[in-house]
Amino acid sequence: MARILLTVEYFGKNYAGWQRQKNALGVQEVLENKLSLVLQQKIVLVGSGRTDSGVHALAQKAHFDYEGNFPLKKLAYAVNTTLPWDIRIRSAETVPDDFHAQYSAHSKTYVYKMYLSRTSRPLKDLHYARIPYEKIDFAAMKQACGDLVGTHDFKGFSSTGSGIKTTIRTVFSAELYENGEDITLEICGNGFLYNMVRIIAGTLVWIGVGKLPVSAVKDVLTTGKRTLGGKTFPPQGLYLKEVNYE
Amino acid sequence: MARILLTVEYFGKNYAGWQRQKNALGVQEVLENKLSLVLQQKIVLVGSGRTDSGVHALAQKAHFDYEGNFPLKKLAYAVNTTLPWDIRIRSAETVPDDFHAQYSAHSKTYVYKMYLSRTSRPLKDLHYARIPYEKIDFAAMKQACGDLVGTHDFKGFSSTGSGIKTTIRTVFSAELYENGEDITLEICGNGFLYNMVRIIAGTLVWIGVGKLPVSAVKDVLTTGKRTLGGKTFPPQGLYLKEVNYE
Repeated sequence: MARILLTVEYFGKNYAGWQRQKNALGVQEVLENKLSLVLQQKIVLVGSGRTDSGVHALAQKAHFDYEGNFPLKKLAYAVNTTLPWDIRIRSAETVPDDFHAQYSAHSKTYVYKMYLSRTSRPLKDLHYARIPYEKIDFAAMKQACGDLVGTHDFKGFSSTGSGIKTTIRTVFSAELYENGEDITLEICGNGFLYNMVRIIAGTLVWIGVGKLPVSAVKDVLTTGKRTLGGKTFPPQGLYLKEVNYE
Repeated sequence: MARILLTVEYFGKNYAGWQRQKNALGVQEVLENKLSLVLQQKIVLVGSGRTDSGVHALAQKAHFDYEGNFPLKKLAYAVNTTLPWDIRIRSAETVPDDFHAQYSAHSKTYVYKMYLSRTSRPLKDLHYARIPYEKIDFAAMKQACGDLVGTHDFKGFSSTGSGIKTTIRTVFSAELYENGEDITLEICGNGFLYNMVRIIAGTLVWIGVGKLPVSAVKDVLTTGKRTLGGKTFPPQGLYLKEVNYE
């Protein structure tokens, strides 16, 4: 038996997120079906974690156990030729038997891409969230962004319904970049709650346009109140960029 | 009567190009229908020229004549709310009655976006053409690119079936940019033949990967032979970036 780790890129628009589920199509289901077909045995993937409906991944990670002789070097190519265009295996490698795509990860990095424009932009709307303003207080956003770093209770930065034990997470870094009309948030943490990055993006933007005070991030962290933050920004701006292992 | 000039952005995937046509949907038809609806009169657009099926535009230009009192400042917003997401009017302005979207233009600028990767990349494939190699001789491509500049017979850089009078065009500038795995061609000329930019892109890439000599651009220009160039690259990498008026 060998444990194989896949790195997968996907454009999320046509999928109800990563996870296999009953009434909608997840990326996991498509991948499992094609892997099973190519390897001629039932393959079950263990992903690094969910991504929400419509969210993209530059490098989602998933492992599976396989007994057989299919050459690993040809696996990505063979499966990719059967996959729809919006899912691709970037690489496949053997990992130790005790490696686990979810539990061995010590952190994840997400990117959230936005652009400033009064009018929506067809050539950006598949890959960015739009901020419908001409100007934004980037300095205020940056200041508030810094308040995210550290170990906090992120309850107020999550949507209900996830049923997890604790809402305490550590954010190792959170950076904002500005490039013309584009604003990018890059955030690295040991775990992310349901909708957490999208609510953080929405809150930073509401600070930037003056709908919330610059203290809003601190306020949400201190009180745990979702209502003190901005709106949940849309999925098409969000990318799982990296899952970080030892 | 007023002559109004529109600047239009579109994501081309879902359209058979700009031009209104019988058996397929052009961007022009969608725009004309929505303009006619909002302005409550039959609107006929005169575009700066065609774009091919699947090609994008950052700033296509089109004019129309209008008699009525609809406030010009609200036109883009009013029409945009009725348009599908992949077409947007970026601006609308009054121009002199003798202004013509096609004939008043002295040049156009196209951009062709490519990326180098053995594996296709779902997060790029809607907006770039893929070069299925790991390395490319960028210096050779740049050298050949320089040969495009000037007044030449571009017959060998066009697909047949356009039925135009002359295939002589002037290219004012042609630049290649490299950024990591991305390669961008930006070309400005007084007119472009059918598939011209896409054949130029394909020829430069074939020079870069060694399938053609660095002299291939000159050879095609001198002989007019389409067969001495590279393949016609796909439409999703091509953008009409600017139509330049006095």
